[in-house]
Amino acid sequence: MARSSGKSDGLVVWFTGLSGAGKTTLATILYERLLQHGLNTELLDGDVVRTNLSKGLGFSKEDRDTNIRRIGFVAHLLQRNGVVVLCSAISPYRAVRDEVRALVGSRFVEIFVDCPVEVCARREGKIEMYRKALTGELPQFTGVSDPYEPPLKPELHLQTARETPAESADKIMRFLATHGLLPDLMIGTSTSSSE
Amino acid sequence: MARSSGKSDGLVVWFTGLSGAGKTTLATILYERLLQHGLNTELLDGDVVRTNLSKGLGFSKEDRDTNIRRIGFVAHLLQRNGVVVLCSAISPYRAVRDEVRALVGSRFVEIFVDCPVEVCARREGKIEMYRKALTGELPQFTGVSDPYEPPLKPELHLQTARETPAESADKIMRFLATHGLLPDLMIGTSTSSSE
Repeated sequence: MARSSGKSDGLVVWFTGLSGAGKTTLATILYERLLQHGLNTELLDGDVVRTNLSKGLGFSKEDRDTNIRRIGFVAHLLQRNGVVVLCSAISPYRAVRDEVRALVGSRFVEIFVDCPVEVCARREGKIEMYRKALTGELPQFTGVSDPYEPPLKPELHLQTARETPAESADKIMRFLATHGLLPDLMIGTSTSSSE
Repeated sequence: MARSSGKSDGLVVWFTGLSGAGKTTLATILYERLLQHGLNTELLDGDVVRTNLSKGLGFSKEDRDTNIRRIGFVAHLLQRNGVVVLCSAISPYRAVRDEVRALVGSRFVEIFVDCPVEVCARREGKIEMYRKALTGELPQFTGVSDPYEPPLKPELHLQTARETPAESADKIMRFLATHGLLPDLMIGTSTSSSE
């Protein structure tokens, strides 16, 4: 019986993509910028959520979907109370991402953080993980031994091998501002060209 | 990395007690009253959370504690974004309730919804469950075949066999108002006996 209270100018910004594509990097930049604008903001990182909400779940399709549904449930609770929720999780399966989209409704923005697996595998902090994935030591690894289903119609498609994180973050801020997706108070002058 | 944004005048009101003691009844009355006051409010009901966050968990001490930790995690996320979160869950173990209290900090109110098990077992919608618990058909049933550890120092101790739900709810509203625990906007004058 988790019901909403009516206020609903929050937003869910959902970052999907391979490990190392830049999801959490971008979400963190966004988080800092939105905080500076005085917005209520939360960053739900896939790994943190696995610790707090999904301990015991593995990496089968079913378990991954359950994990994503839980992130979606919590993100929606926050969003409908006016919070801008940045969700950073590989979320490899399209159907469950679309389930979360349907739950949240119009205030859902899917960002495809697109980066070739060869580039991801060379990024800082990811080299060892990808090495283990390629040798099979880490099984069910998205993009190597487990599928990734890219979004068909994401609100934004960023190619993070071709631009800096700051440039990607600028694009996201511009998208949110020009689509009127950021709550009242704020932003305006600092992000969009006209507002 | 679910971090807060600074705004933090939310509140967690935690109802603990046996099945049938009146937790969800009281939480629902509170929910309606707080909504009327224009507050951002959410009701996290133990059963609903089990569906959305804890499917697969059972009723062992460990699983119950995990379930309560998850409710606490979500409640805290909402609270620190200004939401008044009403949590209604048996939450039979003291230690994990105190863990949630420590996580939330000063804006945590524990309400012991106290009612003798014989009274709970006769209440509407609970008779069949308690019958099964007493015959052993439903195992690990709190208050019958599983322990319940009452709070040692709850902020409020309500004896629901001795007063109506409306009277209990009045006490809660009065407690919150007189302790300055309800966000700015509101309440003060409107909650005492006169409303």
